[in-house]
Amino acid sequence: MKASSSPCRAIGSSPEAVNGYASHPNLLPDPKKERVVILGSGWAGYAFARKLDPAKYERIVISPRSYFVFTPLLASTAVGTLEFRAVLEPVRRAGVAFYQGWADDIDFSRKTIRVEANATDDLSNRPVPLADPPKPEGGATAEGMPRPHPPRPPKGQDRQPEDTAMFDVAYDKLVVAVGAYSQTFGIEGVRQHAHFLRDIGDARRIRLRVLSLFEQCSYPTGSGGGGTPLTQEDKRSLLHFAIVGGGPTGIEFAAELHDLIHEDLATIYPELLPLVSISVYDIAPKVLPMFDQALARYAMDIFARQGIAVKTEHHLQRVRLADGHLGDEHGMLRVRIKEYGDEEVGAGLVVWSTGLMQNPLVEKLVSKSFAAGKGQGEREEESHLLKDPKTGGIVTDPYLRARTTTAAGRTADSPATGVLDDVFVIGDCAVIESLGEGEAGGPPTVALPKTAQVASQQARHLAVQLNAGDAARRAFRYRDWGTLTYLGGRKAIHQSSADELRGWVAWIVWRGAYLTASMSVRNKIMVPVYWAISWMFGRDISRF
Amino acid sequence: MKASSSPCRAIGSSPEAVNGYASHPNLLPDPKKERVVILGSGWAGYAFARKLDPAKYERIVISPRSYFVFTPLLASTAVGTLEFRAVLEPVRRAGVAFYQGWADDIDFSRKTIRVEANATDDLSNRPVPLADPPKPEGGATAEGMPRPHPPRPPKGQDRQPEDTAMFDVAYDKLVVAVGAYSQTFGIEGVRQHAHFLRDIGDARRIRLRVLSLFEQCSYPTGSGGGGTPLTQEDKRSLLHFAIVGGGPTGIEFAAELHDLIHEDLATIYPELLPLVSISVYDIAPKVLPMFDQALARYAMDIFARQGIAVKTEHHLQRVRLADGHLGDEHGMLRVRIKEYGDEEVGAGLVVWSTGLMQNPLVEKLVSKSFAAGKGQGEREEESHLLKDPKTGGIVTDPYLRARTTTAAGRTADSPATGVLDDVFVIGDCAVIESLGEGEAGGPPTVALPKTAQVASQQARHLAVQLNAGDAARRAFRYRDWGTLTYLGGRKAIHQSSADELRGWVAWIVWRGAYLTASMSVRNKIMVPVYWAISWMFGRDISRF
Repeated sequence: MKASSSPCRAIGSSPEAVNGYASHPNLLPDPKKERVVILGSGWAGYAFARKLDPAKYERIVISPRSYFVFTPLLASTAVGTLEFRAVLEPVRRAGVAFYQGWADDIDFSRKTIRVEANATDDLSNRPVPLADPPKPEGGATAEGMPRPHPPRPPKGQDRQPEDTAMFDVAYDKLVVAVGAYSQTFGIEGVRQHAHFLRDIGDARRIRLRVLSLFEQCSYPTGSGGGGTPLTQEDKRSLLHFAIVGGGPTGIEFAAELHDLIHEDLATIYPELLPLVSISVYDIAPKVLPMFDQALARYAMDIFARQGIAVKTEHHLQRVRLADGHLGDEHGMLRVRIKEYGDEEVGAGLVVWSTGLMQNPLVEKLVSKSFAAGKGQGEREEESHLLKDPKTGGIVTDPYLRARTTTAAGRTADSPATGVLDDVFVIGDCAVIESLGEGEAGGPPTVALPKTAQVASQQARHLAVQLNAGDAARRAFRYRDWGTLTYLGGRKAIHQSSADELRGWVAWIVWRGAYLTASMSVRNKIMVPVYWAISWMFGRDISRF
Repeated sequence: MKASSSPCRAIGSSPEAVNGYASHPNLLPDPKKERVVILGSGWAGYAFARKLDPAKYERIVISPRSYFVFTPLLASTAVGTLEFRAVLEPVRRAGVAFYQGWADDIDFSRKTIRVEANATDDLSNRPVPLADPPKPEGGATAEGMPRPHPPRPPKGQDRQPEDTAMFDVAYDKLVVAVGAYSQTFGIEGVRQHAHFLRDIGDARRIRLRVLSLFEQCSYPTGSGGGGTPLTQEDKRSLLHFAIVGGGPTGIEFAAELHDLIHEDLATIYPELLPLVSISVYDIAPKVLPMFDQALARYAMDIFARQGIAVKTEHHLQRVRLADGHLGDEHGMLRVRIKEYGDEEVGAGLVVWSTGLMQNPLVEKLVSKSFAAGKGQGEREEESHLLKDPKTGGIVTDPYLRARTTTAAGRTADSPATGVLDDVFVIGDCAVIESLGEGEAGGPPTVALPKTAQVASQQARHLAVQLNAGDAARRAFRYRDWGTLTYLGGRKAIHQSSADELRGWVAWIVWRGAYLTASMSVRNKIMVPVYWAISWMFGRDISRF
């Protein structure tokens, strides 16, 4: 067993740590079990941690957030169909040991992770983190995929680095499942003024903003008093909801927002309904690229009937606050679209759901060197993780183990000379080699979509192999189970290699699919309860 | 009808207003109906608005928050037994017209209310409003009573007065139900560092703080890295939960917190359990003053068995942040208690649930003069609202109409010379005259408790009289339906004039009582669902 060969600087080794945690079975080092540390609590990390056999392994999850988010239903929480908590699964409920924090660095030679503690809810408890200019990338996704690492709060603003508690955690096996961050392509104002839709905090902020916009536009305009009254044109701008990105996340949010407005807000603010508009912008000539032409056209027909404008081949160039009281007091935004020239589009809310970039930890890992190779038939020399040149992700072999190279280039073009056989990479930060290729000459990698499906299949595959005692027992093979997207008005589309569905039948499948996926029994009960309650009494419209 | 005699400066009179709201039946002035404007959405205002017959009256609610809070269950939401939204009722769902904002002033002569708009969720969307030093009083209650007006955000900080949208609303009849604010008695640090428990935002902040404290104390202490590790003594301080005020709110919160810790957190953080303590401080010699000696002693016996320390005749003198990283990084508090001298008590959370003061609007109203008396057999001269000298509330006649006086003193000692027969005051800001007293010579007032029960009985009474067409048809008479308090571990106490109950029988009554009170059908379904889910799967522990 390898636990005894772990470096002794970390948890479970120092007398204080043992003393402090003497009563906690999960945290007590068990020399009979290998310790598997999982970085991330998204689709990859959380599913893997749940599936890994606790009788065989000691499981420790490290993640900056204490829960897993069931991302496909996030848009439903943003419009009040579902309660926020119905799409959350607390990591600790899975019975694993858990440290809330960011993995700051990994020492592959000494098999130790440096962790920065984060228990103060910096991430999620801020009302408008998007307004912080120095915020790093992160917070939303293109395709409804989960990312285990929400944006890291800017250091030096809320936290002082010297105050931050850091500690080390040793591992026998390591699973890197830290996901990706949102990419804004450096477009001015996106990070400050747009909302992402990746974490529960994003959903809550979007929800409050949508309801607040209706409230703001509901005040009487003509009567006396201070302040500048809103004109009908101002209200039209504030009630314009702009969604950037025509992937499933953007399309489903547009659909759910349409349902909220037309099924619930219409009875409360009937006078505002003629002023509302929803637009989806995408730079591609076609939205929903993962669906075939017929289904995508069906989706566009439904959107057209619902009055949702889908603007393909439109390039967003800037988002800014409107001048004067409209920006200061009402938060009105002005969006510049390349195709419209200098004429800006007004909006009350911009939701950004396009683009991904690598997690900073991944960037750090692929650019550092370490001594490796002992015991795997390799030379004891400086080694590096192999970086995928296209995506910046970490290349793995077909068994999901991190690839290493001793070449200076550290790209897929350089020879992949080895493998870290105790370090696994799954989910969005992993790029897998093609099956059956030789090791020399840089095997081509497979560009799997960065989706929840891929992440959870990898998680399951890896857990099954490790539970069987041999990671290299069977190579990973992705199976496309099909794609589902909700279109509003109880209609959806479903496409897989076997069949395709559209309309309310697909909607039934869409709802049913969620009940079978990675969800606790509690939420398998609660989600249908909320659906029933929302159907009977309308969506929840309370703002708090 | 009186609508036509309203001043014409306000909503429904100006062409723009009519134009902007032409399609909204609720907001269109109906000359055949009297307009009743209700200030506040708490137990008094919300219940009255729901009960008032829409076929006879046009109903407009004005409140800074868009929902009614079912306050007796607020403590349950703070510990995750219930979902936040299960104790909220959106005001607009009651079918009334609604303006979100603060009533800034009332012109009784012209029958007009000046309203300051508040649609930007200033109140509830701030993460730590208690940390804002210039914040005015407000945010929590002594006895689980709702107050319609949460603390007003400090002007000039987030909002600039000149930017604030103000508008006027005319009324035919006015119901003042603005409630009271929390009172901190000027004790240093309470407003900055203690949590109130009055609104849903308070419950959410308390919940996040409790869970975050356990998370902070769960990190390994002995291993390397920056930051200063917490000692066992530090953790003992951080896991000390101090509750100030031994009324039902404080006692029920202590009981619910004990259940959360011992039923749910105990399995997740077993190593921290020996470090946890809960204390209830009260200046009186006895807690739960509304219960008789035997029931209060029973409650104390239960608390003693649960290890909750009840410290009567203890005077809190100051709350401050601990020095150094314990305060800065972990938010540890130091509480000075008079009886302990200079030795301060450490705490991770202080919940303040004692003391009430008048709403600033009430203070403004009782100190201003206006021309009144026409048509009620009085002289046309400067008049004032009659102020109760003990509580500062507005004195009403037995029909809940606001009392006026022309004397300079404007107290109950000065003669109550008249009544504003279209202005009603109910709930915590009202002080009712004794029944059957003559009008001259200052009739004694009845000090009814400031409870949800009194407020909702007054609301119901007034609505029934107005629906019958005559406010002075029948005098208000309070009926004590008894008091219920939850004590933890599925035990409660119940006391009324007829009987008293204790133990699990009272707990069943406690739960049952909530399902019959001022709650929508939606929440009447959801609350038992949450109870069942929490019972089966444990309380929700996700932090977001």
